[in-house]
Amino acid sequence: MAKNNENYVPLTVNTLPERLGSIDAIVSRLGSDTSKWKSSEIGDGNLNMVFILTSAKGSVIVKQALPYVRLVGDSWPLPLKRAFFEYHALIRQEERDPGSVPEVYHFDEDQAIIVMEFLSPHTILRNSLMAGKKVTGLAKTLGLFCARTLFRGSDLSMDTRERKADVALFVDNAELCDITETLIFSDPYFDAQRNHHTPQLDNIVAQLRNDIDLKVEAQHLKAKFCNNGETMLHGDLHTGSVMVTDSEAKIIDPEFVLYGPMGFDIGMLLANFWMAYFAQPGHASAKGERAEYQNWILDVVEGIWKEFLVEFSRLWREERTGILYEKSLFEDQNHALASEQALAHRLNNIWDDTLGFAGVEIIRRTLSLAHIAENEMIADEELRADCETRGLKLARQLVVNKSKMNSMASVNDLVRVIAFSCFKEKNS
Amino acid sequence: MAKNNENYVPLTVNTLPERLGSIDAIVSRLGSDTSKWKSSEIGDGNLNMVFILTSAKGSVIVKQALPYVRLVGDSWPLPLKRAFFEYHALIRQEERDPGSVPEVYHFDEDQAIIVMEFLSPHTILRNSLMAGKKVTGLAKTLGLFCARTLFRGSDLSMDTRERKADVALFVDNAELCDITETLIFSDPYFDAQRNHHTPQLDNIVAQLRNDIDLKVEAQHLKAKFCNNGETMLHGDLHTGSVMVTDSEAKIIDPEFVLYGPMGFDIGMLLANFWMAYFAQPGHASAKGERAEYQNWILDVVEGIWKEFLVEFSRLWREERTGILYEKSLFEDQNHALASEQALAHRLNNIWDDTLGFAGVEIIRRTLSLAHIAENEMIADEELRADCETRGLKLARQLVVNKSKMNSMASVNDLVRVIAFSCFKEKNS
Repeated sequence: MAKNNENYVPLTVNTLPERLGSIDAIVSRLGSDTSKWKSSEIGDGNLNMVFILTSAKGSVIVKQALPYVRLVGDSWPLPLKRAFFEYHALIRQEERDPGSVPEVYHFDEDQAIIVMEFLSPHTILRNSLMAGKKVTGLAKTLGLFCARTLFRGSDLSMDTRERKADVALFVDNAELCDITETLIFSDPYFDAQRNHHTPQLDNIVAQLRNDIDLKVEAQHLKAKFCNNGETMLHGDLHTGSVMVTDSEAKIIDPEFVLYGPMGFDIGMLLANFWMAYFAQPGHASAKGERAEYQNWILDVVEGIWKEFLVEFSRLWREERTGILYEKSLFEDQNHALASEQALAHRLNNIWDDTLGFAGVEIIRRTLSLAHIAENEMIADEELRADCETRGLKLARQLVVNKSKMNSMASVNDLVRVIAFSCFKEKNS
Repeated sequence: MAKNNENYVPLTVNTLPERLGSIDAIVSRLGSDTSKWKSSEIGDGNLNMVFILTSAKGSVIVKQALPYVRLVGDSWPLPLKRAFFEYHALIRQEERDPGSVPEVYHFDEDQAIIVMEFLSPHTILRNSLMAGKKVTGLAKTLGLFCARTLFRGSDLSMDTRERKADVALFVDNAELCDITETLIFSDPYFDAQRNHHTPQLDNIVAQLRNDIDLKVEAQHLKAKFCNNGETMLHGDLHTGSVMVTDSEAKIIDPEFVLYGPMGFDIGMLLANFWMAYFAQPGHASAKGERAEYQNWILDVVEGIWKEFLVEFSRLWREERTGILYEKSLFEDQNHALASEQALAHRLNNIWDDTLGFAGVEIIRRTLSLAHIAENEMIADEELRADCETRGLKLARQLVVNKSKMNSMASVNDLVRVIAFSCFKEKNS
């Protein structure tokens, strides 16, 4: 594990002014009179400390890594270097999809501190999905973010020496990778210590853990995640890593950054929309009240995939400057059609991976350590189990039959069928 | 590019005793009286200086990297650090398949020098194949080497933090990777400057460069080579990287080491056997004289694949200690069958990749910069073109139809059919 700096000291609300009062990037935004600064700790994630620091002049976010997993405590140590990886991911994402992430004002590697733009009046997308709030342009922002960061972080676009240097840089993010490798790909498939699930799911959980085809495919997906370093991924692109207003979305928290397969980010993202869809009955004030909102969620899913396809294809045709599928072999030889053929194959692979990774994400969010708020907030266990069961039914189809599904519209059809099916008998 | 050390000085036959006379690992083998040492430069490869250093007491090989490609000269600079990568590959290969590579006695990183075991009376396998000489146990040694190094260098076996550290270490071998990426995967598919081919091949070369399916598949294979870092590869495992007696084989020269897809090493190896097969008529003293030897070559091909399968499967069942396909999810859950299912899938993937990489290797050895001696030594251009054409016919089938071929016996059948077909009309 990377060694933590000996001079590292965690920030507190009281020490913020003293410790950050001489940083130009902050002073220029808040003013130099630190007695006028106000701060509060708002970290609601699982890993880090997050402060809002404000003055009459402005505000910034101060994010500091802790030397352990906040959710669990110091029994689970985690290197501070994750702030370094997050910083390097943020500046690359900003370069590859300008405006998609908070602006970084300052980075202190020794103290594992990133000072960045305070997004206001943004809220976490996951909360907004629970509340039934729509976000104009959401699919477009997320689809473009995926297309641009995935394409531009790969050998389709980058100078390969730079990409190789980035592979070496990010492959050291081993401890956060280990969390994904373990919690997403392994724990759900056996009776691991950190697992928990809603008791009513016992039967379906047992079924899934005895489902050899599912288990084998999930492990193939793990192998892809571990070894197929196609591009720089966000690595944790769920709806808790997106902040929204009613018309804007920004992507945050890329400390799980790694070089991995293109379908992983999109798959995790879509999975969280589908889970939010199935959870709606748990947040409706009356039966059917969320029906129209559920359709909106599925429209967002289709929209993300469509925007991704269109933008990825545009980048393929216009910005393919890397060592893969070189224009010198295709367009320059009057073989633009070969380039289109290769694009179709690659998109087909990304499609399979997307559905597969979506499936394992749903399963781990229901069986493994970290569940989603949309389900956890449903107090009625029977109702929660019902929402979760539908997600699991979808997930199994996605993982095992990903290569046989041919459009996002048909996947969404399946989602609707599952939402309106009765699984009661079989699970009791 | 990695910076070369300023104190680096190339060795010469005259300076060897002075410069190496105080190295324990050499003195202990040759004695301390350097006036009794004899040396000669025997480097016949494309990149490096290789000396044999002998005394009455013993002998060693001294291999030193040059700061450029020896074959081309100082117009093509190449970092000395490749000696560092070769050294690290050699010690890992020795650990993973003991006895398969020359013993390393000493490594000097600054001077890019590896001192190692002098293999005697070994000759290069490629020359032995031209001469029609058999090697007892060849398939077994090569099949085991592939299975053991590929399995034990991967996340199927290694501690993943060690594997990730090795990924970071070897991904810096970018310049040698670039040679492979360019000469194997790109140059053959357009009219690149360094290309050359036997003039009689003009028609088939034009056909191949217009063959969209071939070109697209070759680029998919390049993408796998660049991004799918499954294991530590030798990276240049052709028959010029194997030294043999009539009953022993050792693998040398792993400076092209990289993390890449498992099928690459085996594919390149098999390709060179198939090319040697097609080249036999160019080295026979009478028509049909080499028929039995050709059958031996194909037996070696089948043997390598079989040994690989058996040993890889044994390692899968007995040494699967990495983070992929964990026993805790399979055998420990009474699901050994799931483990076998996963193994079959993985072997199927390696099979496809093996045939694909074999195909692109044959094509590049016929169209790109570095040809094989078996063909280059055939003075009769018509005959050489005939041998090469048969290789290209096979190659195209392997690359485009790899997923539809189901056994090495049937691939070898195809090889025989191609060997006895008449392609004359169509190429003239």
